[in-house]
Amino acid sequence: MGMTMTQKILADHAGLDKVSPGQLIKAKLDMVLGNDITTPVAVKEFRKIGVNKVFDVNKIAIVPDHFTPNKDIKSAEQVKFIREFAREMGIVNFFEVGQMGVEHALLPEKGLVVPGDVVIGADSHTCTYGALGAFSTGIGSTDMAAGMATGEAWFKVPEAMKFVLKGKPGKWVSGKDIILHIIGMIGVDGALYRSMEFTGDGVAHLSMDDRFAMANMAIEAGAKNGIFEVDEKTIEYVKEHSTRQYKVYKADEDAEYVATYEIDLSQVKPTVAFPHLPSNTRTIDNVGNIKIDQVVIGSCTNGRIEDLRVAAEVLKGRKVHKDVRCIIIPATQKIWKQAMNEGLFDIFIDAGAAVSTPTCGPCLGGHMGILAKGERAVATTNRNFVGRMGHPESEIYLASPAVAAASAVLGRIGSPDEL
Amino acid sequence: MGMTMTQKILADHAGLDKVSPGQLIKAKLDMVLGNDITTPVAVKEFRKIGVNKVFDVNKIAIVPDHFTPNKDIKSAEQVKFIREFAREMGIVNFFEVGQMGVEHALLPEKGLVVPGDVVIGADSHTCTYGALGAFSTGIGSTDMAAGMATGEAWFKVPEAMKFVLKGKPGKWVSGKDIILHIIGMIGVDGALYRSMEFTGDGVAHLSMDDRFAMANMAIEAGAKNGIFEVDEKTIEYVKEHSTRQYKVYKADEDAEYVATYEIDLSQVKPTVAFPHLPSNTRTIDNVGNIKIDQVVIGSCTNGRIEDLRVAAEVLKGRKVHKDVRCIIIPATQKIWKQAMNEGLFDIFIDAGAAVSTPTCGPCLGGHMGILAKGERAVATTNRNFVGRMGHPESEIYLASPAVAAASAVLGRIGSPDEL
Repeated sequence: MGMTMTQKILADHAGLDKVSPGQLIKAKLDMVLGNDITTPVAVKEFRKIGVNKVFDVNKIAIVPDHFTPNKDIKSAEQVKFIREFAREMGIVNFFEVGQMGVEHALLPEKGLVVPGDVVIGADSHTCTYGALGAFSTGIGSTDMAAGMATGEAWFKVPEAMKFVLKGKPGKWVSGKDIILHIIGMIGVDGALYRSMEFTGDGVAHLSMDDRFAMANMAIEAGAKNGIFEVDEKTIEYVKEHSTRQYKVYKADEDAEYVATYEIDLSQVKPTVAFPHLPSNTRTIDNVGNIKIDQVVIGSCTNGRIEDLRVAAEVLKGRKVHKDVRCIIIPATQKIWKQAMNEGLFDIFIDAGAAVSTPTCGPCLGGHMGILAKGERAVATTNRNFVGRMGHPESEIYLASPAVAAASAVLGRIGSPDEL
Repeated sequence: MGMTMTQKILADHAGLDKVSPGQLIKAKLDMVLGNDITTPVAVKEFRKIGVNKVFDVNKIAIVPDHFTPNKDIKSAEQVKFIREFAREMGIVNFFEVGQMGVEHALLPEKGLVVPGDVVIGADSHTCTYGALGAFSTGIGSTDMAAGMATGEAWFKVPEAMKFVLKGKPGKWVSGKDIILHIIGMIGVDGALYRSMEFTGDGVAHLSMDDRFAMANMAIEAGAKNGIFEVDEKTIEYVKEHSTRQYKVYKADEDAEYVATYEIDLSQVKPTVAFPHLPSNTRTIDNVGNIKIDQVVIGSCTNGRIEDLRVAAEVLKGRKVHKDVRCIIIPATQKIWKQAMNEGLFDIFIDAGAAVSTPTCGPCLGGHMGILAKGERAVATTNRNFVGRMGHPESEIYLASPAVAAASAVLGRIGSPDEL
C-alpha cells in the first residue's frame, strides 16, 4: 500500500520511509503557533519543562489576535505575559497590534508556512495551512509547550478520506459553500481524526482563498487535518509570499483511503449552516424567511481579500438593512490595506457597514460584535455552536461572504440573486 | 449688569428677559442625548414617569458608542434595550453600528446642534457643543429621563469665567494643548459649576476641531459648560452641516465674570497631562524620558479629521516604535471615510498603526486597547484618572495628536520636532 499526502509528509518529518494509519510517530516541526488565549498556558507549561530557550526562534509564531486590541484588563495581562516571553526568548514572529492579523490568514501571508511543512498550532483552525499542501493541525497548550522546547511532536498517523472535486463552481459558490456542503454531508464527526485530502480537476477552479476556507473548516468535520494537492496556483502563492524551501508531496497511486467522495462542484449551491452545528446545512433556496440582526464578514475562514471583494460586489450601490449591523473585519493589516486601496472600503462605508481593525473578534464571542439574547447573525465564520458569538439564546448562521453580504441588505438570510 | 453668552441662551430658553448667576430656571431643550451606558438607566427612569411618548422624536439622540461594536453580552443587552426603546418611541436619531460615531463628534457633524441651542446629554463631555456657541452640559440619567419626557430641564445659572485668547498658536500647538495649558493653570476644579467663555482675537486662529477639543475638556476643569463666541468659521461649519435655524448670542459689554484670563496663544507650548489628573501638566520640553507601550489617537476630544491629518503628517514615512501599539480611532464613519480618501490610512497602516472602527473604546477603559499593569499610554483622550484605560497601575498621559504620533515613533513621550 502506498501513502497519502499527509502520510508522506509525516513519514519524512519522522525520518521514516513509510508510515501507516494508526502508527505513533515523532515528527520534526517546521512551525509552532499560539495565540493570546492559548500561549499563556503554553508558556507556563514551558517553564515547567526546565529548558531556558526555545528550539528555534524562527519557527515559533505568536499571534495575539483573539481579544486584541486588548478588550479588557485580563486580555491585556495575557498579551503582556506572552510579549515578555517572546522578548525573553528572542522569538522573531511575535505580531503586535498594527502588524497583527488573524493567525491563520497571517502565517501564509508572511510566508511562514510552505508546502510539505509540519505545523502545530494551539488553535483548532490551524488545519488552514493544508491549503498549501502542508500538514497542519490544532493541538493543546501543553503540546505547544513541548513543541516550543523540543521542535518535535507525537502524532498518530491519521487514516485518510479522499474528496475528488470535479467541475467548476457556479456564480456565488465559494470554497465556504463547498466545505459546508461536505460537512452537511458527512457530519461534524464525519472525518474524526482523519485526514481530508482534496484532489481532482475541480481544485484548479478554486482560488487559494477558497482552499484556505475549506482546509480551515476540516476541523468542523472532526478531521485531524485537511490538505490540498499542490498545483500551479499553490506554487505561485508560495513564491509570492515566501523565500523558504518547500517540498511537494503527492499521494501514491495505491494510497489507502477509508472513504472516497466525488463532488461535482457545478452542482453545489450556496449553503448555510443553521444553528447550532456546522453540519446543519441548508441550500440557499431552502432557508425560509429568517430575519437577522447582524452580519459578520471576516475571520480565519473568510476574512481574505477575495472574500472582501465578493462582499463588495454584492454591497456596491446598496445599503445595509436598517435593522442590521454589518461588521466587516479584514483578516490582516495587509488585506486591510489592499481592500482599502481597491476601493472596497468606500463601498462598505457607503453601504453603512463598519470596518474593523483585524481581530478574531466576534467569531468566538470575544468582542467587536457580540450578540444579545434572541439576536441572529449571519457570519462567514466557522462555528455556530450555542452561545459562540454571545448570549446562549442567540443564533449564528454560517455562510459565504456573498450570502452574508446579501443578507445584510435583505435583513434576512438570502442570496445575491434576490437583490 | 449684563449677561454672558451662556446666561443669554439660558434666559431665552427659560422665557425670561434676564437671569443672574445662582438663579434656578427651567429651560426648554433643543436636544437630549444619551449613550449605551447612560440611556438604559434613563429609559428605566423614563418608564417610572408614566408618560408613553417622548417630548419630540427629533430632539433626542441615542448613540451607542461606548462599548460598541458590542464588546460583550452585557453591552449587547444594553444596546438591544435602548434600540427597542428608540424603535418603540420612534426616536429618529438612533445611530446603529455602521452609521455610528463618538457622540460628541457625531451630533455636530449630523447638524443636530447649532449656535444658541440648549443641549443636555447623559455624558460628561456633552460640553463639547459649546464650540458651536451652544449651551450644552452633561447631566445624569435621571435628568435625561425627565428631559426626554418633558423637553425641559432645571439649571442653576452658572457664574462665568472669561478666557481672552490672543495671538496665534505655533506649529504643533493645537486646541488640546491650549485647554491642557488652561486646566494646568486653574486646576481640575478651577471652573467648578462655572461657564468657561472663550473669546478674543485668538479664537480666529483656532479651527472648529480645535474648539471642539477645548470645549470638550471644560468639564475637566469642573465647568458647567464651555462656550466659544460664534464667528465666521462657526457659521460656515453650521451651514455646511445643518439646515436648522440658529441664533447667535453675544455677551453684553458689561457682562459679569468672576475671573478673566488673558492667554497668549503664541506662548503656549505642546502640553502633556501626566498621571493621574488632566491638571498635572508639563510642557513638552519638561517631560523627561518616559517610555510608553501604547498610543491612542481618537475620542470625542481628538478623533476628528484635523487630528488625524496632524497625526498623519507626523507619521508619514515613519514607523511606529517596535515596543508601541498605536491605535487610531476616527470618531465617526464620515471622518473615517474622509481620512481614508485623503490617504491618511495608507500612512497609518504603512507606519504600523491599527485603524479602528469608530468607538469611544479605550478612552474609558471600554475596549479596543486596554492597558495591563504597569503599562503607559499617550492618549489624545480627555481623562487620565487612575485605571481609566485599564489596570489601576497603568498610566495615561494626555496629549495632542501631534505629540501622541511623535511619541508612537519615539517609543517615549516626545515632540514631532525630535523626529
